[in-house]
Amino acid sequence: MATTTSLSVYAERLRRAQATLAERNVDFLFVGPGSDLMYLIGFNAHLSERLNLLVIPKSGRPSYIVPVLESFLVADRGELMELKRWEETGNPAQLVAETVGDPKGKRIAISDQLWSMFTLRLQGAMPSARWASAGPVMRALRISKDSQEIETMREVSRLTDEAWAEFLESGQISGLTERQAMTRLGEMTVKRGVLGGFGICASGPNSASPHHHTGDRVIQPGDAVVFDWGGTLNGYHSDITRTVFVGEPTEEFRKVYDIVLRANQAAFEAVRPGVPAEEIDKAARSVITEAGYGEHFIHRVGHGLGLDVHEEPYLVGGNTTPLAAGMIFSDEPGIYLEGNFGIRIEDSVLCTADGAERLNNASRELSVMD
Amino acid sequence: MATTTSLSVYAERLRRAQATLAERNVDFLFVGPGSDLMYLIGFNAHLSERLNLLVIPKSGRPSYIVPVLESFLVADRGELMELKRWEETGNPAQLVAETVGDPKGKRIAISDQLWSMFTLRLQGAMPSARWASAGPVMRALRISKDSQEIETMREVSRLTDEAWAEFLESGQISGLTERQAMTRLGEMTVKRGVLGGFGICASGPNSASPHHHTGDRVIQPGDAVVFDWGGTLNGYHSDITRTVFVGEPTEEFRKVYDIVLRANQAAFEAVRPGVPAEEIDKAARSVITEAGYGEHFIHRVGHGLGLDVHEEPYLVGGNTTPLAAGMIFSDEPGIYLEGNFGIRIEDSVLCTADGAERLNNASRELSVMD
Repeated sequence: MATTTSLSVYAERLRRAQATLAERNVDFLFVGPGSDLMYLIGFNAHLSERLNLLVIPKSGRPSYIVPVLESFLVADRGELMELKRWEETGNPAQLVAETVGDPKGKRIAISDQLWSMFTLRLQGAMPSARWASAGPVMRALRISKDSQEIETMREVSRLTDEAWAEFLESGQISGLTERQAMTRLGEMTVKRGVLGGFGICASGPNSASPHHHTGDRVIQPGDAVVFDWGGTLNGYHSDITRTVFVGEPTEEFRKVYDIVLRANQAAFEAVRPGVPAEEIDKAARSVITEAGYGEHFIHRVGHGLGLDVHEEPYLVGGNTTPLAAGMIFSDEPGIYLEGNFGIRIEDSVLCTADGAERLNNASRELSVMD
Repeated sequence: MATTTSLSVYAERLRRAQATLAERNVDFLFVGPGSDLMYLIGFNAHLSERLNLLVIPKSGRPSYIVPVLESFLVADRGELMELKRWEETGNPAQLVAETVGDPKGKRIAISDQLWSMFTLRLQGAMPSARWASAGPVMRALRISKDSQEIETMREVSRLTDEAWAEFLESGQISGLTERQAMTRLGEMTVKRGVLGGFGICASGPNSASPHHHTGDRVIQPGDAVVFDWGGTLNGYHSDITRTVFVGEPTEEFRKVYDIVLRANQAAFEAVRPGVPAEEIDKAARSVITEAGYGEHFIHRVGHGLGLDVHEEPYLVGGNTTPLAAGMIFSDEPGIYLEGNFGIRIEDSVLCTADGAERLNNASRELSVMD
């Protein structure tokens, strides 16, 4: 995962991380492979049974614990942190403990995606430390995007929209399997430089399963077909959903489509700084509930989006976090009628200084394919 | 990730898991998304901030904690376990705690790849439990492959060998970037039905970095080029490395190639049931050390292979685990000369009742490409 971000940006992020640790009275931040590490030092560490760990003290120089055989990959980041290499027969948890010093009473926050095998070993090596989730610290840093991140998110979303426009004109999908249809759309996305994507194609009754595993069902006339996909540009994710009908839509499909579209619009219009995250969910849910389909909208209306395809803020009942400019999240209401069909319409949305901007502008009108 | 394994196989694996828990005096096994879950119930759960967790008590019926919106995907496994669905505003850690009952003094083992956000929340919901890694339990179950797993591993390895044979005849690689060369080889692998692969192409001086990130360097005459790649068939991984030279090999390259090839053969010949895992590493290392390159063989000789691309047994100094029939692991010595070149030759190897069988049979002779 290449980034064009310069080291000075990461140095500044590390400084902000340390300031956040100090504010929150956290002594150390432990960050393993994944999006938090990408954010802080721009390094896509290999996720495996060999420990890679960024250790950030509240003050002073960060350390990076790295297997010798992977140390070449991070050698260019020596000005950000001290590299501490461990040999194949070494004990990396011990190396971390030595970096921490006396752990007694120390408050240590662990990044959300670190594997439990490491969490448990580190706890075992420093039993007198106090352990916490690094979620709140990382959320403070990552939840609002800076101008460069926003530009990247606009671009990856725009390229994904272009792929959809091409797909709609690409001919018949009836007769293809879900996998074949998803492959066609995926290739149109990848050729625009949007990489490493995920993709759900859910057809006919499968469309009523929000996280359906794309399979070998053959798409046929009369199907609703949900496409939920995205990919990355410099590590930042697009995520969009469109639902089409194969052939002449039924009355019921038209009716439900209109409700979901209005819910998507209602959520979008509710977005502005200061509004609690859960209000966006409520805005969409009210439309669907009033139309009589409340029990069929079985998930939150959205999730934050950036280096992770799901991240803070979550637009869900109970989350009172106020929205702020620079936050980016999905707006994806859906109605799922088990055994029959489902419809979801999803855009990525940026909270701006005085409202909202849709990052996805692919047509939301009811589209028919053959 | 589809599997053709029937539910009765998973029922039997769950029974073996419970027997292992009883033997080891573990009260509960917690298994999150990943290879352990694939092994136990054949379900490729969505890895995200929403908890999916298989809870296996030492005796009695297992439970599966699942978000409502993903519950459709696992509904066909109801005979294996009780499905406990949680709504978007629910508290899945609490649902797990209710499943466990009084946690006081209970010994709970957590699967290696569970994210720390869940580990810490579960510890918080059950502070009086005793926490341990599920590594030893899962190793006991997974380290030796059954006949169906072995057949799958033979097949995925054979298909990957075929891709290599085609690649060697596919024309010039000089002038391609590493990424372009890897894409060509990757496509030859994928078209044989071997999916979801990883790939390292490391050229020229990059070949001296064992886990090089494939990039935009242009391959040129005089380069050593390491290809380390693989993919999956029904979830089981192939993993093979070949190193070629572009143009007429130098004397030094020929000499080092011969040493690495002899080390690969020495490791292979050392494999038989009862031999400690570390002895296989030593067998390869002795060859390289005696040839004067010991300090340039900077990683263990191999790792287990199956549903994970790295798993037990690890062939590394200090691991005295005796090999047994059915174990499958890589045999991958390498010599890395920083700033110059690196060579690695890797096969997957099965430990049989009386020796070893190579699962990869692609040519190991020094190959030249244009």
